[in-house]
Amino acid sequence: MNDCTLSVINTGLRGVDVASSKICDVRGKEGKLIYRGFLIEDLARNASFEEVSFLLLYERLPKKQELENFSQSLKQKRNIPENIFSFLKTLPFDMNPMDVLQMATPLLMQNDHKVSEPGIENTLCSAENLISGMASITAAWDRIRNKKEPVPPDNNLNHAANFLYMLNGKIPDDETARFFDTSLVLHAEHSFNASTFTARQVASTRAHIYAAVSSAIGSLSGALHGGANVRVMEMLKEIGSVDRIDAYIDNLLSSGGLIMGLGHAVYQTDDPRAIIIAPMSKRMGQIANQTLWYELTRELEKKGKAAFKAKKQRDIFCNVDFFSASLFYAMGIATDLFSPLFAISRVSGWSAHVIEEQFAMAAPKPSLYRPGAEYVGDYCGPDECVFTDMDDR
Amino acid sequence: MNDCTLSVINTGLRGVDVASSKICDVRGKEGKLIYRGFLIEDLARNASFEEVSFLLLYERLPKKQELENFSQSLKQKRNIPENIFSFLKTLPFDMNPMDVLQMATPLLMQNDHKVSEPGIENTLCSAENLISGMASITAAWDRIRNKKEPVPPDNNLNHAANFLYMLNGKIPDDETARFFDTSLVLHAEHSFNASTFTARQVASTRAHIYAAVSSAIGSLSGALHGGANVRVMEMLKEIGSVDRIDAYIDNLLSSGGLIMGLGHAVYQTDDPRAIIIAPMSKRMGQIANQTLWYELTRELEKKGKAAFKAKKQRDIFCNVDFFSASLFYAMGIATDLFSPLFAISRVSGWSAHVIEEQFAMAAPKPSLYRPGAEYVGDYCGPDECVFTDMDDR
Repeated sequence: MNDCTLSVINTGLRGVDVASSKICDVRGKEGKLIYRGFLIEDLARNASFEEVSFLLLYERLPKKQELENFSQSLKQKRNIPENIFSFLKTLPFDMNPMDVLQMATPLLMQNDHKVSEPGIENTLCSAENLISGMASITAAWDRIRNKKEPVPPDNNLNHAANFLYMLNGKIPDDETARFFDTSLVLHAEHSFNASTFTARQVASTRAHIYAAVSSAIGSLSGALHGGANVRVMEMLKEIGSVDRIDAYIDNLLSSGGLIMGLGHAVYQTDDPRAIIIAPMSKRMGQIANQTLWYELTRELEKKGKAAFKAKKQRDIFCNVDFFSASLFYAMGIATDLFSPLFAISRVSGWSAHVIEEQFAMAAPKPSLYRPGAEYVGDYCGPDECVFTDMDDR
Repeated sequence: MNDCTLSVINTGLRGVDVASSKICDVRGKEGKLIYRGFLIEDLARNASFEEVSFLLLYERLPKKQELENFSQSLKQKRNIPENIFSFLKTLPFDMNPMDVLQMATPLLMQNDHKVSEPGIENTLCSAENLISGMASITAAWDRIRNKKEPVPPDNNLNHAANFLYMLNGKIPDDETARFFDTSLVLHAEHSFNASTFTARQVASTRAHIYAAVSSAIGSLSGALHGGANVRVMEMLKEIGSVDRIDAYIDNLLSSGGLIMGLGHAVYQTDDPRAIIIAPMSKRMGQIANQTLWYELTRELEKKGKAAFKAKKQRDIFCNVDFFSASLFYAMGIATDLFSPLFAISRVSGWSAHVIEEQFAMAAPKPSLYRPGAEYVGDYCGPDECVFTDMDDR
């Protein structure tokens, strides 16, 4: 193999562009995040999660009637098959919600009689089924594990408000619903992160979208990926009060640890999503009469950035998880639901990528991702090992 | 980015070595397949699936007592949690067995109280749980969808014979059991194919082995990957008799189609596994008094290779799916179980890769696979698109 090959071994493919895509651009240097040409700031300010999902799936902003039809179709898909509830009720109540979501998501295909004929129309329809269904599953599991009955959807509510209603059994106030909607918008897409790459890779074998999205959930369940906002919250709880921040940072940095929520593989500025979430987290803390977590986060940001710079002589920046942890916590959402919240939003992006992988790029694209590996194992001599009888081992 | 980056866009990472690995070497030019230093021919001739699984997981051949302990441990894990059966019974009976396996596999973690403390010892234990449990799930689902009760395991039987027993409710004859055992050995590992890459990628986020293996099943469910042996069988049925082969090939090649089971991304010879399976398929056809499918395969091989060479001026070779289809079919196994059979064997390889990804290469390895993508979407002008009000669209 040539030099190029050698250079990507064990690098996690960092900095290696593996595909061309029309879905999302992350401009790390400038701190810009762009969905289908639109800046995340514009989308967060102006568009609902439904509108952004339409944009991601259909490659353009919807007209008014189109958005209404799309929202209506999502509403129809909120009712999940009955056997999902009975299945969830058989699970141990301490099972991790991400594991539950990975298992239960493919069950949504029962609603979908055309899963074995995965043309682009059917796959778009399946994507809607996943967007609505994964939210319903997540809410239902949180109810069931807390020994409450699942709440049926309220079709007067939009996607974000309805999710909170199905989770808590009461209609959220407008501000909370709007913040939650915006956080869904912010998490909906981020180019080739690990879970999206998993979704595309599974889709590249021509597996259907349920298999691809379920696998992406598995990928997102890892502590280094979707688990990061959970670990931010655990860190905030561990610190507990502002006056303990200095000691926490000293201790962490001197033992070679990292401050959760600071640093990102791509951004060389504060994550634009963090900048949007921060004031929402502040306001949500006020609404919930629970300002500690936002204040802790802000102080930790200041002191953590300074300490990092002093130690490493370079800057470090907030990522999206840094402020979303305190936002979701102030909303009263259980910490171990943070990753599922990420999933029920990112499913729109994953779906767009599955569709691009399977339909948009058919011509020049090879059939599936199949990299190689350099064998560094033994050969027990000049060539293969000699198989020895069991008694001689 | 540099030239290297450009060269891998939309290539499916073909020929790009992304990691170093001690597990498996596929020497395409020579037609050699090597697990942990040992030639597949030696393993197929001398070792059971249990022995090969031990080799893959523990990096060496087991001593006699070690193999006995390992086999014993696998036997203890054949009994899957009761709620898996009740779950399977709620599913529509026409659901694809790969979808069922992807959903049900994470349920095996209920047996595994240390899944949240994934050290290497615990992960090895989980791997055993997966190896036994996925076989039990596959057999149980085939029983349930055929309105039969699942068959409890028989711990006098080895893994291969017990699977056939749990599937059919009767103990297989020695020759059939041995052929099935060998086919499990042959499918157990194949370096960085698509599903293994999925498993490693999910594992690289530090997701647990159940998430990684479930995702790998999703990847394997695609028609271009694990689905290939199913399509070989469908092709054989479509052809139906030896005298129709010429017309089938003419028709296929003139319309730009491919003969299923011929051609492989890596081998430039006949797949060494196909060479081992072919005589098993022949003999199994005799045992089952059903020699047509082997004969069809053999004739199709001869004529297909000749026609391909005449048309393309280069050779094409058999891959593992080419003869495994007729072998499994002669064993009386339902066609749509061929991919699950692949999965219940490959789980040993996937597990070895998860362990290598998470434990063996910790030091020089980056945290997770996170490639980039080249954005080729619109910008609606010199820079970002302008967000327009809905009424102006």
